[in-house]
Amino acid sequence: MLAPHQHRFLILADGQFGPLTSKTANSCIRYFPERIVAVFDRVTAGRTAQDVLGFGGTIPVVGDFARGLALGRGASAVLIGIAPMGGQLPAEWRGWLKTALERGLEIWSGLHTFIADDPELGSLARAQGVRILDVRKPPPDLPIADGRAAEVDPYVILTVGSDCNVGKMTAQLQLRDELVRRGLRARFVATGQTGIFIEGWGIAVDAVVADFVAGAAEQLVLQGAVDADVVLVEGQGSLIHPGYSGVTLGLLHGTCPDALILCHQATRDYIGDYHGCEPWVRIPSLAELVEIYERAAAPVRPTKVIGICLNTFDMSEPAARAAVSQAAADTGLPATDPVRFGASPLAEAILREVVAAR
Amino acid sequence: MLAPHQHRFLILADGQFGPLTSKTANSCIRYFPERIVAVFDRVTAGRTAQDVLGFGGTIPVVGDFARGLALGRGASAVLIGIAPMGGQLPAEWRGWLKTALERGLEIWSGLHTFIADDPELGSLARAQGVRILDVRKPPPDLPIADGRAAEVDPYVILTVGSDCNVGKMTAQLQLRDELVRRGLRARFVATGQTGIFIEGWGIAVDAVVADFVAGAAEQLVLQGAVDADVVLVEGQGSLIHPGYSGVTLGLLHGTCPDALILCHQATRDYIGDYHGCEPWVRIPSLAELVEIYERAAAPVRPTKVIGICLNTFDMSEPAARAAVSQAAADTGLPATDPVRFGASPLAEAILREVVAAR
Repeated sequence: MLAPHQHRFLILADGQFGPLTSKTANSCIRYFPERIVAVFDRVTAGRTAQDVLGFGGTIPVVGDFARGLALGRGASAVLIGIAPMGGQLPAEWRGWLKTALERGLEIWSGLHTFIADDPELGSLARAQGVRILDVRKPPPDLPIADGRAAEVDPYVILTVGSDCNVGKMTAQLQLRDELVRRGLRARFVATGQTGIFIEGWGIAVDAVVADFVAGAAEQLVLQGAVDADVVLVEGQGSLIHPGYSGVTLGLLHGTCPDALILCHQATRDYIGDYHGCEPWVRIPSLAELVEIYERAAAPVRPTKVIGICLNTFDMSEPAARAAVSQAAADTGLPATDPVRFGASPLAEAILREVVAAR
Repeated sequence: MLAPHQHRFLILADGQFGPLTSKTANSCIRYFPERIVAVFDRVTAGRTAQDVLGFGGTIPVVGDFARGLALGRGASAVLIGIAPMGGQLPAEWRGWLKTALERGLEIWSGLHTFIADDPELGSLARAQGVRILDVRKPPPDLPIADGRAAEVDPYVILTVGSDCNVGKMTAQLQLRDELVRRGLRARFVATGQTGIFIEGWGIAVDAVVADFVAGAAEQLVLQGAVDADVVLVEGQGSLIHPGYSGVTLGLLHGTCPDALILCHQATRDYIGDYHGCEPWVRIPSLAELVEIYERAAAPVRPTKVIGICLNTFDMSEPAARAAVSQAAADTGLPATDPVRFGASPLAEAILREVVAAR
C-alpha cells in the first residue's frame, strides 16, 4: 500500500469543477498539487487547474476518464472531489469507479455515503484486493471522552475560529512546518476530510455520532501524542456557528488543549457570509472571541488563546499588514497571516510556552 | 397501529434488572408503569418492580419469556430495557425477539444497534407486517440548522442542566401537565429515548451525526410548534460535561429557545458523581451556570434562564425546601422541585413570559 504522499490521484469533479463548486477537489489541489495527475471534468476539459481556479498550475483537466487514469505515470487512486447531487451515486460515477477498481486503483472519498458500503463497488474492491478509503467513516468503538487527553506529555494546541472556512487547518499545517524547521517533533492531527487526505489518517469528527465527538477528539490526541513534542489539532466550525457549534465544543472539551490559536478571516463580518447567505450571526471582536473560547473551556479544563491567525487572502498587502497589527493590538497576542507572512510569530509563542511548561 | 399509551409492554431486562443496571427499563417503569405488563429477568424473577427498584408497584418480574408475553391481556410489544454487553445482540435475545415477532408483537428499542437493520429480525418483521421501532435511529435528510426555530409562534423553552441525569426530561413533563391544567396547549418535545418511548415521536439527538444535531433540534421545534402555545424541549447533557457538551450546545443553538429552565440535582457537586466516577469537573454555582448558558446562547440568539428545577429526591423534606429557597435566593429566579413540590412556580413564570411576549 502506498503512503499518502506517494499516491498519484485522478480527481473526479465532473460537471462541477470550479472555484465555488468543487471544494474537496480544490483543497486537494491547493494542498498537494504534486500528487495530482489530472482532474476529470467534461465541462472544463482542455484547460488547466490554474485556468479554472486561479491556482493549481499545469494540472490538466481531462474529459475522458480512462485517458485521465493513464496520464503521466498513471494514477494510483481516484479521489472524489465533488459531492453528487442528491447524495446518491449517479450511474455514470458507478461506471467510472468500477473502471478504476478493475484497473487496481484505490478510491478515496470524503462523501457522507460510504463507497465501500456500496454492494457492487465494495465487493469489486474486495475481489480486486484494492482499498476504498472513506475518510468520513468513523472508527468503530469510539469512547466517551473522559479527560485522558489532558494527561499526554506533548503540548497540545487546538485551532478555533470565528467561523467555518477561515483557515484552521492551514494554520496548523503552516505551524507544523515552521516548528519542524525549528527542530520540534510537531504532529498535525486531522479532524476533517482534507486533512485526512493530506496525512492519510485522522477522524472526520463532524461525521461522528454526536455523543462521541469529544471521545474521537480524545483518541486523536492520544494517537498524535506518540513521539511528539507538540500536537497540532485541526479545529472545526465555531462556537458561535448556529449549525456546527456542537462539534466545536466537543473538540474543545475532548482535546483538553494546553493552548488555542484563534483563526479569523479579516474581512468577514457575519457567520457564513463567504457563501452569500443572509447575515444572521455577527462575528464579535477578536478580544470577545478569545473570551468566549476561554470561558467555554474553563469548567472542563482551563486553557488560553496564545495567538491569532488571520486569513487575509482577499486584502491588499498593506491592508493585510494593518489588519495583523490591529489584531495583535486588540488582543495583546502575537498575530500573523501564516500563509502570507509566515508562522514565525506563532511558532515563537509556542516555543516560549513549551519551554515554560517544562 | 396502537398509539404509544395504548401499548402493553413486556420489558426485556434479563440478567440486569436493578436500580443501577437497567436505566431504560427503570425510566419506563417510572414514567409509564400503567403500560407495562411485566419485566423479563431470570435473576430477579418472582419479585415485583417495587421489590427490585423501590418503585413500580406490583409489576411482576417473570423468568419465562413466553409466560411474560401472555400475562394480563397479553403484551402488544417487547421493549428492550437494557443494553447487551458488547453491543451485539446475544443469541438468546434473538430467539426471544423472534418469538415476539412471530406472535405479531412490535419491538421497541433504544439500542445504538438498530434491530430493524438485523437481516433476520428485520425480514421477519416485514414478513409479519409488524413494526420494529428503533427510537435512536435518526430520520434521514436532517438539515443543517439555519435559524428557522427562531421564527415559530409558540413560546419555546429548553431545559438545560448542571449535568446529565438531573431531571431535564422530568421537569418538562411536569411542566407540560401543569400548563395543560392551566389551559395552555403545551407540547413536550422528546430528544432522548425515554421521552420518545413516552410520546411515540421525537429524535434521539445524541445519536445524530454531529453536524446535524442543531438541525435535528430545529426540526423538532418546527414539528412541536404546530397548534401549540408552548413548546417544551427536553434538554440533554450539560455545557460543562466533558463528553456530551457538544450535544448540549447543538440543542441550545438549534432550538433558538425563548427561555431556558436550569435543572440541577441539589446534592451533586461534580459532573458524573452519581455513578461513582472520580471527581473531575466541579459543578459551579447556579448563578454561574445561568451565566454560562446565557453567554453560550447569546452570539447566536440571546435567551434567558427563567426558572430553576431542583431534583431533591435524595434529601429530607426540610432540606429540600431549604435547597429550593436557597436556589431562588441565589439566582433571583423562581425555583421548585417539580416532582416533590409541583411545577406551579415555573408555570406561573412561563405564563408571565408568554403574556409579555404577546
